[in-house]
Amino acid sequence: MHIAIVGCGQLSRMLALAGIPLGFTFSFIAEHEGEDTSCVQHLGRVVHRHPKLTAEGLYEELGRPKVLTVEKEQIDPALLVELGQYCAVHPNPKAFATLHDRLSEKELLEQLQIMSAPHAYGVSAAEAAQRLGLPIVVKSCRDGYDGKHQRILRDERDIMDFDRGGFDQHCIFEQWIPFEKEVSLISVRGLSGQVCHYPITENIHDRGMLAQSIAPGRDISAAMSATAQDYITQVMEALDYVGVIAMECFVLGEQILVNEIAPRVHNSGHWTQAGCASSQFENHIRAITGLPLGNTISRGVSGMVNLIGTSAPPQRAFSLNSTLHWYNKSIRPGRKLGHVNFFGNSHDELIRDMNQFRQELVNSRVS
Amino acid sequence: MHIAIVGCGQLSRMLALAGIPLGFTFSFIAEHEGEDTSCVQHLGRVVHRHPKLTAEGLYEELGRPKVLTVEKEQIDPALLVELGQYCAVHPNPKAFATLHDRLSEKELLEQLQIMSAPHAYGVSAAEAAQRLGLPIVVKSCRDGYDGKHQRILRDERDIMDFDRGGFDQHCIFEQWIPFEKEVSLISVRGLSGQVCHYPITENIHDRGMLAQSIAPGRDISAAMSATAQDYITQVMEALDYVGVIAMECFVLGEQILVNEIAPRVHNSGHWTQAGCASSQFENHIRAITGLPLGNTISRGVSGMVNLIGTSAPPQRAFSLNSTLHWYNKSIRPGRKLGHVNFFGNSHDELIRDMNQFRQELVNSRVS
Repeated sequence: MHIAIVGCGQLSRMLALAGIPLGFTFSFIAEHEGEDTSCVQHLGRVVHRHPKLTAEGLYEELGRPKVLTVEKEQIDPALLVELGQYCAVHPNPKAFATLHDRLSEKELLEQLQIMSAPHAYGVSAAEAAQRLGLPIVVKSCRDGYDGKHQRILRDERDIMDFDRGGFDQHCIFEQWIPFEKEVSLISVRGLSGQVCHYPITENIHDRGMLAQSIAPGRDISAAMSATAQDYITQVMEALDYVGVIAMECFVLGEQILVNEIAPRVHNSGHWTQAGCASSQFENHIRAITGLPLGNTISRGVSGMVNLIGTSAPPQRAFSLNSTLHWYNKSIRPGRKLGHVNFFGNSHDELIRDMNQFRQELVNSRVS
Repeated sequence: MHIAIVGCGQLSRMLALAGIPLGFTFSFIAEHEGEDTSCVQHLGRVVHRHPKLTAEGLYEELGRPKVLTVEKEQIDPALLVELGQYCAVHPNPKAFATLHDRLSEKELLEQLQIMSAPHAYGVSAAEAAQRLGLPIVVKSCRDGYDGKHQRILRDERDIMDFDRGGFDQHCIFEQWIPFEKEVSLISVRGLSGQVCHYPITENIHDRGMLAQSIAPGRDISAAMSATAQDYITQVMEALDYVGVIAMECFVLGEQILVNEIAPRVHNSGHWTQAGCASSQFENHIRAITGLPLGNTISRGVSGMVNLIGTSAPPQRAFSLNSTLHWYNKSIRPGRKLGHVNFFGNSHDELIRDMNQFRQELVNSRVS
């Protein structure tokens, strides 16, 4: 069976590397001219989308895939609808479009009575601040990831500045949540409706980008896990979603508030490559091809550290209890170039190893 | 770093799939014209060896690898020596040549006082039978794998028949061992001399070919494990061996007798893909590139069933606790086409799942 993926980044790379052993072949769509496709080099054909190429032509050039999937939200949802005439598309275009836009995502959460930060839309920042209380977070409805296209408005002056300038895209205001912890839940739904969840992951961000994950997350009660699993199951069922989905949440005491949902495999699930019998990548492929899902139970404790904008020699990443995933990208500041997965028998052991590695990483930058 | 592998089969495929995430690139040497290279399709360039191609030319066509390794014993050892002028070769050509030939392997075992079946060489079958006692096993010194090129001589008549016809290659006679169990030990030695062992694997063969493995093996005492680990460590140190090595053994009560040693990743270590943080494939790559070795401790219990000569639909291979490795080969009777890895929390659970799967496989052949 042949699978096509929209996108040529590291997520496509790792999806293909997980799918090849299962007997699948892959091709990839590059949406933009000059897109860096080095991540998927050797793993299958790359087809560049251009205005003269019809949907049928694209389908043919991709090698007539049975299934199309995506590695990122920042794509044109119309592409999925067009290719859906020729092959299965998972997640389905409607589910994708709903989660592609923060406003429709928020509306879905409200409709399902899922807790998330109170929001305002279609009003000025001043009006939003009055409704939600300061500080507020303004986010563009599209193209927001890794903390891009969002900012915090803390006081009257920020509000005035914003209302004078404003975003160039339609945007949403959210109450700022004084969260104690950020966590995520990676779940997967098969074609048959079967649902599996990975354990909740605890995430630490640095300037909006994920820096590291630990799983299972510490101090997450069974009740909190159950709530999160119930939320994401409701979302997947409402959208007839097939594939892996990632729900990022804020933790406030015992409360779980959904921050955002990504319709794809997710950076905070990379630890599953080391910590679970079936990784998020394998399970996404199993789901979209109609296979039974693989085991999502965590073995021991696992962690992940992102390698961002550094040409860290891969050698540095290796120890008895860690392994590297290097994306084969050209090196640029601020770019995710790889990650290191860690595993251990206890959180203490794991965190000691991760801290030591991060310290070495910092030292190597200074020198 | 670029790595070249002699061979284009499933072991090369899985070595490359384990090495690509570590940031390495690969090329492959096809030794024979018409060799099936579909296993390594998309994973790197395939270079066909032919008499007009010099070692230097081969090295250039391979993309100037830093390291050369092998996926099988049935190759010309001279190739390793020739390419060794241009790049590192692991395992080293001398170690490879020693283990490539049953006689020199036997001599090494004797020299290290490692227990193995008593043998005779350079004599008639009648003489060997007199020395060793019937039955005896006759094995060609080269090209023996998967039970090929060996047979049992049970009585006087077999002996007479053999001495009249004989093998066309030089061969070795061994006492036939009434073993209770066949096990194997997969170990790895790094460039620094660091040695790690996977837990002992219990193997079941069918007509000379590995049918299934279970790890850790049942009823293997700590003393037996220690003996086996001591044996293989001695062998690796004597040969200054770098990479993964596989030692197949017979179990007779508490005794471990070495049957044969393969200088490569091994079918009986495929379960490590599912059962260990670092698989045998990842550790071979780590070893030959000079990286620290990865963790070889088994997580839960694991098993593997080979898919031999059947066009078993991959779908059948999937359950919550199993995953497939399909080799992308053309289907032929008696050919290893893939394997399924199983994992569980207990041997009982694991064996139940494996038996159920094998039953389904048999049923699907009958229908």
